[in-house]
This record gives sequence, C-alpha cells and structure tokens, in this order.
Amino acid sequence: MNASSEPACGVATMRWLGGALELIDQRYLPQRFAYIRCSNALEVAEAIRAMVVRGAPAIGCAAAFGMALEAARQAGTSRVAFDEGLEKGFSVLGASRPTAVNLFWALQRMRECWQASRSEEPPRIAALLAERALALYHADIATNLAIGRAGAALIEEGDSVMTHCNAGALATAGHGTALGVIRSARDQGKRLRVIANETRPFLQGARLTAWEMVQENIPVTLITDNMAGHLMFQGKVHKIIVGADRIAANGDAANKIGSYALAVLARYHRIPFYVAAPLSSIDLAIAEGSGIVIEERAASEVTGYGELRWAPEGVAVENPAFDITPAGLISGLITEKGVTLKPTTASIAGLFRS
Amino acid sequence: MNASSEPACGVATMRWLGGALELIDQRYLPQRFAYIRCSNALEVAEAIRAMVVRGAPAIGCAAAFGMALEAARQAGTSRVAFDEGLEKGFSVLGASRPTAVNLFWALQRMRECWQASRSEEPPRIAALLAERALALYHADIATNLAIGRAGAALIEEGDSVMTHCNAGALATAGHGTALGVIRSARDQGKRLRVIANETRPFLQGARLTAWEMVQENIPVTLITDNMAGHLMFQGKVHKIIVGADRIAANGDAANKIGSYALAVLARYHRIPFYVAAPLSSIDLAIAEGSGIVIEERAASEVTGYGELRWAPEGVAVENPAFDITPAGLISGLITEKGVTLKPTTASIAGLFRS
Repeated sequence: MNASSEPACGVATMRWLGGALELIDQRYLPQRFAYIRCSNALEVAEAIRAMVVRGAPAIGCAAAFGMALEAARQAGTSRVAFDEGLEKGFSVLGASRPTAVNLFWALQRMRECWQASRSEEPPRIAALLAERALALYHADIATNLAIGRAGAALIEEGDSVMTHCNAGALATAGHGTALGVIRSARDQGKRLRVIANETRPFLQGARLTAWEMVQENIPVTLITDNMAGHLMFQGKVHKIIVGADRIAANGDAANKIGSYALAVLARYHRIPFYVAAPLSSIDLAIAEGSGIVIEERAASEVTGYGELRWAPEGVAVENPAFDITPAGLISGLITEKGVTLKPTTASIAGLFRS
Repeated sequence: MNASSEPACGVATMRWLGGALELIDQRYLPQRFAYIRCSNALEVAEAIRAMVVRGAPAIGCAAAFGMALEAARQAGTSRVAFDEGLEKGFSVLGASRPTAVNLFWALQRMRECWQASRSEEPPRIAALLAERALALYHADIATNLAIGRAGAALIEEGDSVMTHCNAGALATAGHGTALGVIRSARDQGKRLRVIANETRPFLQGARLTAWEMVQENIPVTLITDNMAGHLMFQGKVHKIIVGADRIAANGDAANKIGSYALAVLARYHRIPFYVAAPLSSIDLAIAEGSGIVIEERAASEVTGYGELRWAPEGVAVENPAFDITPAGLISGLITEKGVTLKPTTASIAGLFRS
C-alpha cells in the first residue's frame, strides 16, 4: 500500500514506501523539487528539526512513520532491544521540535498502539505500527477535507484571502488546513485570490504557499510581511486564515511568527481572522497561550537567507519561530467539526464531546 | 572645501569633491563598503533611482549636488546651452523617485539660487550653485543634530527603541533623524538598545541600521519585520521612532512600507510612536496623506533578494515602497523645532511660523 499513489491534491508531501519514508525537501522548494529518504526514527527526527518537513500536521504524520520505520528496523532483534529501540525512537522524535503539539499527539497514538500489542512478537508489532501510521496519515487528509468544507462556507465570491506561512498540502498529509479552505472554496466554484505573506525568515509563504497556488492556478499575490497592514488599510484584504501549531484549551493559538500581529491588524481594520486546524492541534492540557513553549531558532536564519548573509557581524538577534494569538482576537476556529465562532474554553471543550 | 572632511558621525554618506560627488553604494553594505562617483545630474539621478543613495534627506542633498555638477559641466557652453542643460538636470533629477519630498524641496532651493543669479555668467552661477548645495548639506547635518537633541529628551534610561528601515546617517547628510535621536540620547549618557526591523524587501534595517549601530557600539537587536508585534506583546519595546519621506499638512506621514502597521501595533500596545523628520520633509501643499504618491517598485525585489530568487514563476506581486501613517496614530513629530505631540494641521503650520 503506497500512500503516495493517491494524494488528496497535486502535492505528495510524504511517500510511505514500507521500508522507507520519502519527504519532499521543503528547504529548497520551489527551485528544487526532490525527495529525501528516511529509514529510521533518527533520520526522520533530523528531517523535522532541519525543516525538510514542517507544518504541525505533517510533522505529526512524519513522526508516526518514523516510529513505524524504527519498529521495522528493530523487528529482528531481541524483545529487550526492540523495546529499547522504540523508546529511543520516541525520545529522539519527541525532541525534534517543541511547539507543534501534533508531534506529541501522533507519538502518543503510536505509543498506545504499541502498548495494546505488547503480547505480540516484534515483527507483528512493527506491522501494526506501520498500519497505525498509515491510518493517521489518511485520517489527516480526511480531516483536512472536512476543515476545507467547513471553512469554505465562510469564503465569499471574489474574496481576497490573506494567509501567512504555509498551512497547505505541504504542511499536512495533503489538502492543507488554511489552504485546504482555499482549495475547497475554489472547488465550490468561488473565484478568489490568495495574498501570501512571504513569512521571513524561512519564506514558507514565498516559496511554499505561492508554489502550491501557482501549481493549481489559484491567483496568488506575494507580498513582504510588512505590507500586510497597508493592504488591509487599502481594503484589499477580505479575510485572513492561518493555521496553528498548538492551540490552548481557551483558544489561544500558537502559529508562525507574525500571526499575532496580523490578528491585531485584522481587529483594527475589522477583518475576520480565522484559525484553521485539526482537533489534534488543540492541547487541552494547556489552559492558555502563556503555557505554550515557543521555539527559538538559530540567529543565522535572521541575519541572512540560505548561504547568503546580509547583516553585519556584531548584531544581536531574536528568532522566535512562533507567537501566540489570544483567543479574543480570533473570529473563528475552523476544525473538522465545523466553525466555532469566537472560541472559548467551553466551546472548545464541546468540540471533543460532539 | 571638502564636505567629507568633517562628517557628523563615523559615516560619510556622500563626499563632495568639487568636480564630482561620491556616494557610498548602499546596495552592497555591509558586505562591501565602496563609493560610487557621479559627475553629472544624470548619474546622480540614476544613483537615486537605483537606491545607491536613499533616505529622504540624503536624496535631497545628493540632488542638490547633482545640479551643482551639471552647472559646472555646462559652464563653458553658451548661455542658451547652459540654461537648457540646467533645465534638463532639474527634470531628470525630479523624475528619479516620486515619494520623498526633500528631493523636490532641495531642487526648488537650487532653482531659486539659479534664478537669483541669472544676471551672472555661467561659471559664476555654477560656483554659486555649488556653494548652495554645500550649504544645504551642512544645514541638513545641523538640522539632524537639532532633531536628535529634541528627541533625546523622550528617551529614558534603559529604553529599547524600535526603528524601521534606516533613518540614520546613511539616510541623511549625517547623524540621522530617527537614529539621530538614538545617537543624541547615547551622547547624553543614556543606556539604550535599538531593535532594528530588517525591512524587506531592501533590508535597510538589517544592512544599514544594524551596521551603523554596530559601528558605534550601540547595542542592536535585529528581527524580521513580522516579529515586531510579538516583541511589543512581550513588553520588549518601549518606544518606536521612524523617519518620514513626506509629511502632509495634517501630519499624515509617508514612510517605508511597514511603518503604518507598526503604528497600529503601537497604538494597540500603548507604545509611543514617533516620527523624526526635518521641516523639509513636510509638504504643506498636500492636505492629507491620501494625496501622497506612493512609489511602486519592481516585482523582482519581492520575489527574491539580489541575484537570489526564491518565489515561483507565475506569482503576482505588490511592491509599494511606502505607506501612510495617519496623524492620529503618531504620538509626536520630532523636528529641528522640537517635539510636536499629537501633530495637527494647526500645530504643524505653527512650526513654519516659529
């Protein structure tokens, strides 16, 4: 069974080959389209850390496949070695990136599968873990299609929809969250335009969102991040939809750095600001956004791009990869369960009961 | 007389050599520090257009020197040819960039000088124009020192001051406007930190502001533009000071793209937002900001940087070089006449009478 044989959209972010996981190397898109092959948990963890694969749901799926690979690799060893190998796999994958909760959510699902199958022999456990990872992958695509359908109802004919970073097919198993809403609206026959903020320092908007939209002939306008407020002032932005890396129980949402400023600007200009994410991005164990750990990345990402360095030596740098948008600035949360307007602790808890 | 022999700060943005004007090529700072030599109005106009020299006051000074060069070059020709050459010089320089009013202000001062000396022979007129340009240059430094002194009173010990783009020595004849305030506060013994927004697409913050601050050992933290809101949320920004390219009679201020969003974010977080600019940046002929022409620059600036291109083919681009901050979002206007809190048409008119 090959997950890549039926991608939900034109882009197969990851391909499961049984003995290996192939990931599009998103660091070099769109200049170079190539897959990287990972054969064990450590290689997958390194790919997550280096942002070969990024986006909360995609990280979760990749980590699940990483555990399946590790189990297959250790299946011929002793039971003790197998168990130790798996524990090590969970540990290395869990330490790859701190903010996206989907990573920990997916690893927890894999651990539950392992625990439920402890009476089996290692080869059988490995097969069950591979099945579980593949199920998580397909469930993510189904979830994104449901998010897209729910969110598309918010989009009006002729809308210009701003998005930040890449919450697209490349950030998920397929279809995307924020861009899933765009795709579904387009599939419903609505004409729209995407305004993609370039999203420094890693340029996911300029490289990945713009690329996904160009691939599908969805009109897309690229701007630098600091132009967003001016376009809102000019009335050129009708809605804003972003993804999320972790949502607290009260609706505060961690997402790519810059999302918070967009939410403040949206409020000032009375533009709806939506967060599109699966329930697996909601962390009920964290009451509010202040409890979410924000990853600080290397200074070299800010002092230049790639091999190019443009800032002088001697400058200090801050490089938080995410920020927190308080629930009070979020017009609606778009999940696979529908649109939750003005999310609160109570309405979010309700999503898990329905 | 050599204007470069006594720069007001460590950086001589331009050097007047009589027969030539040398400009630091700001496109390649800080990697390469080199001067470009201009010998006539056309070469100066091209340097302004290509952003070899940028920043409203610096553009004004360079244009004045450009007219002095053109007059010297034409001084040996007939009176008719001399007059035609000067008119052509005014025309080509006036068409170099549209938004900074200092350009037109400086050209108007040069035209007045020319008109007042029409009874003289061309060589004498050329000498008078060179004197006038040099006077404008030194007056700009004096103005910036006065702006710095006035603004420094607003800075408190230990402040972290955010700035956008480069309103420094490199944007003026010397000392700078927004960075002039920083320099003057430092000279008064106040410890402070500058937070420099990198300012895509041309990266004046990362390249020029960071470089100026490092040169003078003023602590500086570089961030990407989309981090500004998050740092305000964290309480890490105590004041914001930016320059201006043109200020309308009512106080609406055109400045580098992104300034408007900072002003909205500052209002939301109750952080003072100041504009530092000379009176020559105020255009009394324009009632409000909506009347200011905003330059739209090439798409290639947004789809990459320098020779590097990272966006896919097929993407549309917007690239407004400036935006307008309404006077209502400006806590104070810092000019050589002092600080005008909450500027209005009346208080701005008063600056020209005092």
